Amino acid sequence: NHAFNLNFFVHDAPVPDAENEAAMQQRLAPYYNELELGDAPAARSIFPIFGKEMLAVVTELSPKVASFHFGLPERAMIDALKEAGAVILASATTVCEAIALEAGGADAVIAQGVEAGGHRGTFLGDVESGTVGTFALVPQVVDAVRVPVIAAGGVADGRGIAAAFALGASGAQIGTAFLACPEAQIHPVHRELLLKTPSEATQVTRPISGRPARAIVNRYITEMNESGAEPLAFPLQYSLSGPLNAASRKNDSSELMVMWA
Amino acid sequence: NHAFNLNFFVHDAPVPDAENEAAMQQRLAPYYNELELGDAPAARSIFPIFGKEMLAVVTELSPKVASFHFGLPERAMIDALKEAGAVILASATTVCEAIALEAGGADAVIAQGVEAGGHRGTFLGDVESGTVGTFALVPQVVDAVRVPVIAAGGVADGRGIAAAFALGASGAQIGTAFLACPEAQIHPVHRELLLKTPSEATQVTRPISGRPARAIVNRYITEMNESGAEPLAFPLQYSLSGPLNAASRKNDSSELMVMWA
Repeated sequence: NHAFNLNFFVHDAPVPDAENEAAMQQRLAPYYNELELGDAPAARSIFPIFGKEMLAVVTELSPKVASFHFGLPERAMIDALKEAGAVILASATTVCEAIALEAGGADAVIAQGVEAGGHRGTFLGDVESGTVGTFALVPQVVDAVRVPVIAAGGVADGRGIAAAFALGASGAQIGTAFLACPEAQIHPVHRELLLKTPSEATQVTRPISGRPARAIVNRYITEMNESGAEPLAFPLQYSLSGPLNAASRKNDSSELMVMWA
Repeated sequence: NHAFNLNFFVHDAPVPDAENEAAMQQRLAPYYNELELGDAPAARSIFPIFGKEMLAVVTELSPKVASFHFGLPERAMIDALKEAGAVILASATTVCEAIALEAGGADAVIAQGVEAGGHRGTFLGDVESGTVGTFALVPQVVDAVRVPVIAAGGVADGRGIAAAFALGASGAQIGTAFLACPEAQIHPVHRELLLKTPSEATQVTRPISGRPARAIVNRYITEMNESGAEPLAFPLQYSLSGPLNAASRKNDSSELMVMWA
């Protein structure tokens, strides 16, 4: 029995920074107090690195598709995954990234426009450089690579799928729109906001995980942006914002909840 | 003989700020020195306000289309323009702006996605709120207004036009792509950069005119962003950056040139 699609973040092991960690714990202390969560915990890496152990597990699971965000693992690993029968997908937010992914063994490239909810796939250059809109990005990626291109970011209904094909894509990826489905495990408060939040009330921001990601702007994002506090390296920041999200879910409050969109 | 289309910025008369003006003149002094332009001039408003005098001129010229950026003039003026035979177009960067423009008398709304070159049309809310991608913006505007919608931002070829229609638009507006035409009066250096600059090397920024606008990033934009200097109110800033642009054109240098894209 094969898994269909397994998705992975491709991130380096975060370098701990005791000073920044202490500062962030202090910055978040008022939230921890308000939610009666005690002291902020020590930061830890909550996502595994895609290394040899992970590769062994994945080749054993033998998924039809292995898809990657933040770049690709090294070529030998990609070859091992292909030998195990997996089609390799990966996200590009610029033309350069698309070319790099094709060269790195991707069988198809996901062109992730700036409209996309959740984490930006950007892995070459800075955050700002990876903010090209889907409409501009897709045809340029199509022209730059020979592998099929999947359009992502702002595809919300049949019009978006048709537009993706018109722009030259071979497929379209829908994310946020599916969060409204009954099968999605999001909190009812998040679901309610999804349906009434305008596009401009989402923002690409770093204080949730440490990497830029688009979410519905709430009290946490607003206050963290205003504070100018430097988030910990991905995914360490997540381990500190996570308990606030968990408590917010329990309290049915959107204020400190993680609401990708 | 009727003019076909006249385009107008709809901005308030800028409020002079002597302190900020002096600071900006000082900030720009090294550029003025480098280009041997003497002292930076006093700031002045280089674009007319759309008021009664302008209205009289326009109704006399009787264009087929009058299009507006940064919102619409007051309703009585719109009615006068319509009476003179003009179809009214105006740009929206959010759904709210589209609704406001329809209510204000626009016969069609231009949905300007964040990909668009030149000035953001944003007139309600802050700059950041007006940064929705074309792919996400167009279908939402189509659903929100009854007037026809024209897609703008990232439309660069036939694929973009087809995609605009797929997203529900009734038309598509091409801007930057036409700058490559021989008829366009842009500087050859700008033209050359247009053809080789990737999307991510353009930026929405304020130091050229005082309002957010997308241009090819050059030395001027980079250094002004780094300096954190607060631009003068639109269009005062333009009167100070303008001589640098003019001299750059003369010197065939892109460093301080205005290069919308």
